[in-house]
Amino acid sequence: MLLLIPGPVQTDPRVRAAMAVDIAPWDLDFRAEYAALREKITAIAGGIPGEHVTLPLQGSGHFIVEAAIRTFIPEGGRFVLPMNGTYADRMFRLATEAGRVPVPIALPDTRPVTAEELDAALAAAPDATHLCAVISETGTGILNDPEVLGAAARRAGRRLILDAVSAFGAWPFRLADHPEVDAITFTSNKCLEGMPGFAFAVCPTERTRARLGKANSWSFDLADVLVSGERAPGSSRFTPAVQVLHSFGNAIELYEAEGGQPARLARYQENMRILRAGMEALGIRPYLAPENQGPVIGIFHQPGGNFALQPFVDALKRRGVLISNFFNTKEPTFRVGTIGAVTPDDMRRAVAAIGEALRELDALPKAA
Amino acid sequence: MLLLIPGPVQTDPRVRAAMAVDIAPWDLDFRAEYAALREKITAIAGGIPGEHVTLPLQGSGHFIVEAAIRTFIPEGGRFVLPMNGTYADRMFRLATEAGRVPVPIALPDTRPVTAEELDAALAAAPDATHLCAVISETGTGILNDPEVLGAAARRAGRRLILDAVSAFGAWPFRLADHPEVDAITFTSNKCLEGMPGFAFAVCPTERTRARLGKANSWSFDLADVLVSGERAPGSSRFTPAVQVLHSFGNAIELYEAEGGQPARLARYQENMRILRAGMEALGIRPYLAPENQGPVIGIFHQPGGNFALQPFVDALKRRGVLISNFFNTKEPTFRVGTIGAVTPDDMRRAVAAIGEALRELDALPKAA
Repeated sequence: MLLLIPGPVQTDPRVRAAMAVDIAPWDLDFRAEYAALREKITAIAGGIPGEHVTLPLQGSGHFIVEAAIRTFIPEGGRFVLPMNGTYADRMFRLATEAGRVPVPIALPDTRPVTAEELDAALAAAPDATHLCAVISETGTGILNDPEVLGAAARRAGRRLILDAVSAFGAWPFRLADHPEVDAITFTSNKCLEGMPGFAFAVCPTERTRARLGKANSWSFDLADVLVSGERAPGSSRFTPAVQVLHSFGNAIELYEAEGGQPARLARYQENMRILRAGMEALGIRPYLAPENQGPVIGIFHQPGGNFALQPFVDALKRRGVLISNFFNTKEPTFRVGTIGAVTPDDMRRAVAAIGEALRELDALPKAA
Repeated sequence: MLLLIPGPVQTDPRVRAAMAVDIAPWDLDFRAEYAALREKITAIAGGIPGEHVTLPLQGSGHFIVEAAIRTFIPEGGRFVLPMNGTYADRMFRLATEAGRVPVPIALPDTRPVTAEELDAALAAAPDATHLCAVISETGTGILNDPEVLGAAARRAGRRLILDAVSAFGAWPFRLADHPEVDAITFTSNKCLEGMPGFAFAVCPTERTRARLGKANSWSFDLADVLVSGERAPGSSRFTPAVQVLHSFGNAIELYEAEGGQPARLARYQENMRILRAGMEALGIRPYLAPENQGPVIGIFHQPGGNFALQPFVDALKRRGVLISNFFNTKEPTFRVGTIGAVTPDDMRRAVAAIGEALRELDALPKAA
């Protein structure tokens, strides 16, 4: 089965195989492995050793975003949030429930936020200490450029928290060039192609330390993750999903062997080129204009007629390709992921399978 | 390597092997599997179908305890907490950081809380809505009996939240007999012998629903886990550690095949009997009196002389047995777990290895 979803992604067999082992998290051999993994992740984020630190947290991207907002934004504090997708909606809700106050920028879900929109919103909210934003919105496939976000935060003298969950490792970003960033957050199971179950924030060490005990949650206090990790390097506060971490080490080795971020982005962009060209040849309309299409997921209008999503997903699954059986756009769409251990040849096979499935359902657009 | 630790435990090869697979969490096949797993867990908790519900949460036992306290105890609300171990200390801190107010019962860490102590503390705190308690304290190995806790809560007209993390599945408990319980919490990787990465609360359905939005945290709102699971049975709110859930299904099958709770408790008690007898034969003193010894972990005084913990752990590891390299008692001790896929024969082998390791370090007590 080929998973074409924006996470948990298709993984390499060497990553999966590393899950089938018992490990004691506090064992000295594992501690050394875990400490080395954290240093590699800091390097992938373009952090400066010592100045930046990787802070792991069990769970999904949602958990690490809640942890970053709780840790760096004071209770009752305000932050500006561009709203152009499902994950911005989620950040709005999780921050509100945590007692932090988002100041939304209303936007369509079909394009990135602009520098002018960010400048205006930050100027209109002088008491907002932070700008928080989602880089890759997997509901539609758009990508808010962290360079645009970072420059706006710096111009306005604000701090920046980035939800990079489905972008980190593929989209270029160097923390060393972004002194305005408090946290860039992501998970093990997106563009780094590990298994799901762990999330990470890479943060400036001393700014994080200064926030100890401010999260209104021990579990989600990233400063406590920092200081407890310093007391015993390679240790965990609470029993971790240790197999996911162990297997993530293999995923990072494969990432480095492939050529790191530039190579991974190039493969995903080629996957996306093949996917969009294939869909257009079938008469299926992309949801986004080409200039707004990120490399992570392609969203396509449902062709109407006999098309229904679950039967289409089932027909594709019979052909060895698994796509999402839900969509996050207002209009009916379907989603095809281009990230994970997925090659351009896999993508050509998937395009052929999509054509066959549409034919089986008699749902090919008239033009095709 | 044989893991003798109170979690993540030694697992059966069939449980580990099930981790090495890619799964899409929203796939209809997995949804059915996940829904069935939740129903089985409710049954293991002795819950009534429909009246009780299993609410899964990613992460460790710490996360699910924080979630239960946030969900059921109002912000600023008070609860009585018997303090006889490390996990009670942790509950005190996590509740305090979450804005809930524990009213501690000071206790030694060498025995369970008594009915009289519970009655007195509850009478002295009439505004405390809840009693919260740890069943199995893995810092020392004592066990607070849920029957004693439940009866005290009922007498005083209070609600009960149980941290059953290292007891659930082995220690007898039937939710149907405990109308005072709001939540019993546990994880995948203790007495149910699955892999780490998931935690669960089994709760009364309608009482949980009534608490929607009260947790001051979307991530830790168990009522939101309930209602989002009802909207799409078998679905997850956020990308789960899906391999851990899948493999946990195998662990539950093995649990049922063994004979469920009575068989598991009998095996762990036999492991403990062999361990304590073996240690006493070596001249090593148990931390607890026999009548206070739970079945989960044996704690033993370090023998002094040439003994040092990490060299002892290393010497045991060279003999294929892994024990903790830390302790949670005030006096220096070492810890040997008796739970997990560990047989009495394994335990006899471990006792022999401990004797050899002590001899290698010239740390056998003089009497032995």
